[in-house]
Amino acid sequence: MDRTTIASLYKDPQHYGDQQVAVAGWIRSVRDMKNFGFVMLNDGSCFKDLQVVMNRDALACYDDIVAQSVGAALIITGTLVLTPERPQPFELQATSIVVEGESSPDYPMQKKRASREFLRTQQHLRSRTNLFRAVFRVRSVAAFALHEFFQQRGFVYVNTPIITASDAEGAGEMFRVTTLDLQDPPRLKDGSIDWSQDFFGKPTNLTVSGQLQAENFAMSFGDVYTFGPTFRAENSNTRRHAAEFWMLEPEMAFADLGNVMECSEAMLKYTIDQVMKKCPDELAMLNSFVDKGLKARLEHVVASDFARVSYTDAIQILEDAVKAGHSFEYPVSWGVDLQTEHERYLCEQHFARPTFVYDYPVEIKAFYMRLNDDKKTVAATDCLVPGIGEIIGGSQREERLELLEKRIKELSMDPEEYRYYCDLRRYGTCRHAGFGLGFERLVMYLTGIDNIRDVLPHPRTVGNADF
Amino acid sequence: MDRTTIASLYKDPQHYGDQQVAVAGWIRSVRDMKNFGFVMLNDGSCFKDLQVVMNRDALACYDDIVAQSVGAALIITGTLVLTPERPQPFELQATSIVVEGESSPDYPMQKKRASREFLRTQQHLRSRTNLFRAVFRVRSVAAFALHEFFQQRGFVYVNTPIITASDAEGAGEMFRVTTLDLQDPPRLKDGSIDWSQDFFGKPTNLTVSGQLQAENFAMSFGDVYTFGPTFRAENSNTRRHAAEFWMLEPEMAFADLGNVMECSEAMLKYTIDQVMKKCPDELAMLNSFVDKGLKARLEHVVASDFARVSYTDAIQILEDAVKAGHSFEYPVSWGVDLQTEHERYLCEQHFARPTFVYDYPVEIKAFYMRLNDDKKTVAATDCLVPGIGEIIGGSQREERLELLEKRIKELSMDPEEYRYYCDLRRYGTCRHAGFGLGFERLVMYLTGIDNIRDVLPHPRTVGNADF
Repeated sequence: MDRTTIASLYKDPQHYGDQQVAVAGWIRSVRDMKNFGFVMLNDGSCFKDLQVVMNRDALACYDDIVAQSVGAALIITGTLVLTPERPQPFELQATSIVVEGESSPDYPMQKKRASREFLRTQQHLRSRTNLFRAVFRVRSVAAFALHEFFQQRGFVYVNTPIITASDAEGAGEMFRVTTLDLQDPPRLKDGSIDWSQDFFGKPTNLTVSGQLQAENFAMSFGDVYTFGPTFRAENSNTRRHAAEFWMLEPEMAFADLGNVMECSEAMLKYTIDQVMKKCPDELAMLNSFVDKGLKARLEHVVASDFARVSYTDAIQILEDAVKAGHSFEYPVSWGVDLQTEHERYLCEQHFARPTFVYDYPVEIKAFYMRLNDDKKTVAATDCLVPGIGEIIGGSQREERLELLEKRIKELSMDPEEYRYYCDLRRYGTCRHAGFGLGFERLVMYLTGIDNIRDVLPHPRTVGNADF
Repeated sequence: MDRTTIASLYKDPQHYGDQQVAVAGWIRSVRDMKNFGFVMLNDGSCFKDLQVVMNRDALACYDDIVAQSVGAALIITGTLVLTPERPQPFELQATSIVVEGESSPDYPMQKKRASREFLRTQQHLRSRTNLFRAVFRVRSVAAFALHEFFQQRGFVYVNTPIITASDAEGAGEMFRVTTLDLQDPPRLKDGSIDWSQDFFGKPTNLTVSGQLQAENFAMSFGDVYTFGPTFRAENSNTRRHAAEFWMLEPEMAFADLGNVMECSEAMLKYTIDQVMKKCPDELAMLNSFVDKGLKARLEHVVASDFARVSYTDAIQILEDAVKAGHSFEYPVSWGVDLQTEHERYLCEQHFARPTFVYDYPVEIKAFYMRLNDDKKTVAATDCLVPGIGEIIGGSQREERLELLEKRIKELSMDPEEYRYYCDLRRYGTCRHAGFGLGFERLVMYLTGIDNIRDVLPHPRTVGNADF
């Protein structure tokens, strides 16, 4: 079927003015004024509705249409009339309306405001509300902006595997993937599971990170990125954690921690800028109803140079704050991992802008991070943003074979499992660095939404895998 | 560190001519001609190498460099000299070379040609070969082209879930996802597994398709697409099947099967066109060494109108071919599912271009496909391409609640599991349609590679989940 999207009408009203057009969408509201009536129609192509005017005398189906419930699908033909004197720039004078699909008075997405908790039980319908139409369009625009940013810089997109036999960095609890019958799995003589009979001939899990595999490709393409789902089987029920979430992981050859900071700052600014350009109506709605400071904060980020502070100096700042009377729940001293409250203090109160903290103690960071000359810290950085805390974690990777092997041994990791990874250091190793962006954290930051369940189309959390 | 990519040099040689530049990359070959020497350097930013000229007298490290093995990483500073009279447009006259990382004579990616079977055991290194650098760049460019195509058309990108409690369409064997201890899982009194103690409180699997969830979003945004990993636990060891692969699934509201054919044809042409524009060197290499007909075939597809034939007519064509003496392994008659040999006969020999077959018998297609007025066929279409067979499968979805519920009952499916899906038909249902593109099939088509293991960065197949 041929139809004109409402987005097209708003994009070029002059082109469609006084023309016949056919639109198709869903009723947001309908009003019967006796001799004429109005339908506010939305087709999802843009945030704005189209006002449709119905003249009772000219429209045989008038009574049928004004009796329709919110959510009904209509196909409407009419003339687009420009109305420069009114709040909306045009309206559609309907000449024919066909009911494509009726709705019902028990439609759960009525105009009245529903709680976000209730809407989580209606994930198949909630994207029809203003709130979720805004959130999920921002999500889509941000995802594409990230692809654009890296493709324009010449990065190669690599789909690292989801099913993996390694545990990456031991970064978290993993989900087992299996085709064995749990009821009665094959067993060896000693009673243990016979994994050789599983689909892959060994135990496999869902990936927690594509970084190690991305490094394989950085050593051939120079600059690469992954962007795909990752998983954590952590039994935590917080606003910031989901069991399944998307992660972007760029990896750059011949690059150091400075390149990570430059690239990730430019990436965030580009993405925010694209969302501001492409989703002005969505941001206006989110700014009015979700987070009054949203637009100001995003504009501020695009205009700011991000702060940079070493972990050691950051600890000093936090200790000074404690001395000056500020109280934190978790104690602060050199060597501790920063808690969200510390991160937020640094980027919200001390620097008042996004902040890179770099050179963390070796003990609290992953095995693959590059040891600094001080032998106490590694070339790692976290990017902290106001309102969220950590949004990006990156590091320069240990490219020196002997130091990497030593670290693997110190941590009692299985050298055989990391043989391929060490191979990259055997054949043409080079300094290289990369980072990971939790995509849902970014969408929360871009929308002001404070619960990760509301930025995932169908969130998976402990006890929840509906739809 | 600051470096100029080799891609930048090729993009604008005039800009860099006679300038000092620093490049970094890996040795493809090195030659010692006594008083001067050559390094062919590649940094992965483009398919082409950079020729580096070394003057023994001017370069203190000359002997060290010519002794390096293939694959060593170098950082080279020098002057870019334009050489319009030579085959290559410029060369770098080195003034300083630093060995960033040595390689070794046992480096498995020597210049001599290795078999693809061997290279599959070297997945962490194989993308350093010409063949795989071509394949994986084409893959990246094609993935981005698909995003671009749909974003330009106003489609919203939706990340449908990977972990699912439903079995979608019963489309194939699924992988179980669990955190239960297989050694000793919790059991109910009757000895069966106590799934309530699993992470999500019930049995969950890896998705085989995001279509049903994408429909949720098509009913709010109109046009949406998913693009992510999907899984099949099928115990088949063929060149065309992997356990983990990427699938693109667009879904369009107020659309019918004609829109599916229009959209998917335009999508394929756009993607091929982008790859031809952005990967000329890669295609030239693939055309020379993998598939001599590749470029001609891709050009032909972009220039052709795809053929369209009903299943019923297609069967007639195949039966006529049999009468005329053509022999197929599998018999042909109305009602059978088309085999790859039939599909290839239709698009390669009969139509000699990509071909849409549409309106398949209801018995051989999925429950959600829209019943045609003849009550014998459904509004489904497969797009067949020369050399591959089916590359796209699409359909108009059954939007009529009573017919959908009837079909669910006929197939003894659990109505409760599809309650949400049926809700879309209760509240403002509309005609809608969509399709699925197996992304690896497309990459095989774009590269001429005939084994899916060679277009996946780290393929997962029965018995294989390495790297």
